[in-house]
Amino acid sequence: MRIQVVEDILSANERIAIENQRLLDEKGVFAVNLMSSPGAGKTSLILRTIEVVRGKLRVGVVEGDIASRLDADKIEAVGVPVVQINTGGTCHLDANMVRQALEELPLDDIELLLIENVGNLICPTGFALGERLKAMIASTPEGDDKPYKYPGMFAAVDALVINKIDLLPHLDFDVATFRQLVAGLNPEARVFEVSCITREGVEGWGEWLVEITAADGE
Amino acid sequence: MRIQVVEDILSANERIAIENQRLLDEKGVFAVNLMSSPGAGKTSLILRTIEVVRGKLRVGVVEGDIASRLDADKIEAVGVPVVQINTGGTCHLDANMVRQALEELPLDDIELLLIENVGNLICPTGFALGERLKAMIASTPEGDDKPYKYPGMFAAVDALVINKIDLLPHLDFDVATFRQLVAGLNPEARVFEVSCITREGVEGWGEWLVEITAADGE
Repeated sequence: MRIQVVEDILSANERIAIENQRLLDEKGVFAVNLMSSPGAGKTSLILRTIEVVRGKLRVGVVEGDIASRLDADKIEAVGVPVVQINTGGTCHLDANMVRQALEELPLDDIELLLIENVGNLICPTGFALGERLKAMIASTPEGDDKPYKYPGMFAAVDALVINKIDLLPHLDFDVATFRQLVAGLNPEARVFEVSCITREGVEGWGEWLVEITAADGE
Repeated sequence: MRIQVVEDILSANERIAIENQRLLDEKGVFAVNLMSSPGAGKTSLILRTIEVVRGKLRVGVVEGDIASRLDADKIEAVGVPVVQINTGGTCHLDANMVRQALEELPLDDIELLLIENVGNLICPTGFALGERLKAMIASTPEGDDKPYKYPGMFAAVDALVINKIDLLPHLDFDVATFRQLVAGLNPEARVFEVSCITREGVEGWGEWLVEITAADGE
């Protein structure tokens, strides 16, 4: 009985996610669902990505947070269309929230849509939004053991961005060990090492987004 | 109708939490519910706390994780009774999980029970476990804007430990701003600044736990 209820909710979300994806395809928009722990650097990576792809791709952003429109203000400041979703207490975005955000975005002027999910390594994995790509940011201060603790998220994503590599000299974080754990859970995931402070590695990530967005439109 | 279901689940949890607290009171155990983002340093703080309070308080630990018993192994290695709870996919501990863990712990030999919740700044706030104290760890690399983003957690706790202060020279984290934001949401919360690496500030936190545990037993 209880499982039945959960299944119904999930499939309602799936249905709306498929509608979102259809709308985005129609408009030629490639959407990325960006997930991470609180403070891993989702907004910083979005700002750096905008810098790298500027002139090559027109970007739009959806910001998901429990509260505040701090992140949307940062995106707006660099002249990119953005919608802030405040979930109230809900621990993840869902397809219905994103559907409402899409209504407020100039989709005809957007090729790459970056959707920043709520900071949470658990709940967002269960809710498709209509994205073409699921990406996760893992930040080095969180520790290299995180794939053991949150295997569902690490297994679910198409790309993994290791952020804050500028802090590596001050941390006990073994990149090789971490990459090996990730590969064990998800051998197909593309992995990038970046610092949103020094900008190291950010160009490679951005160029890859340009490539896959173009390939998807063909 | 849907709200009704949620209310029933919550009050079932509340009922079990009250039973847990009654059992813990009977046994003279002071329980702390320790919450944070993934990788903020819950297990490290537990290990440092054990060092500080050794000889003054007998400690027990409950480790909550979606998967793995990595953390329980670290606690066991320092000779402290520990039970690992694996929640499967569930994004927080609940009172029923803790009740089962309590059955496996030598409660007569424990004065301070540290319960490490699942790494998540959202979901754990809604579920009492039977604890006397709610404590949160915020780590400096997560950024000083987190109280804006996760106000529910910051407002709910009795104590806040700012961890990884050894990294401050390498970060754009303003301790004064952060403390001001926290005070705005939760003027009563006790705030500690610590580094589990250099051990700075850890003694103050541990001594405070010794004090309040003793005061509670009187």
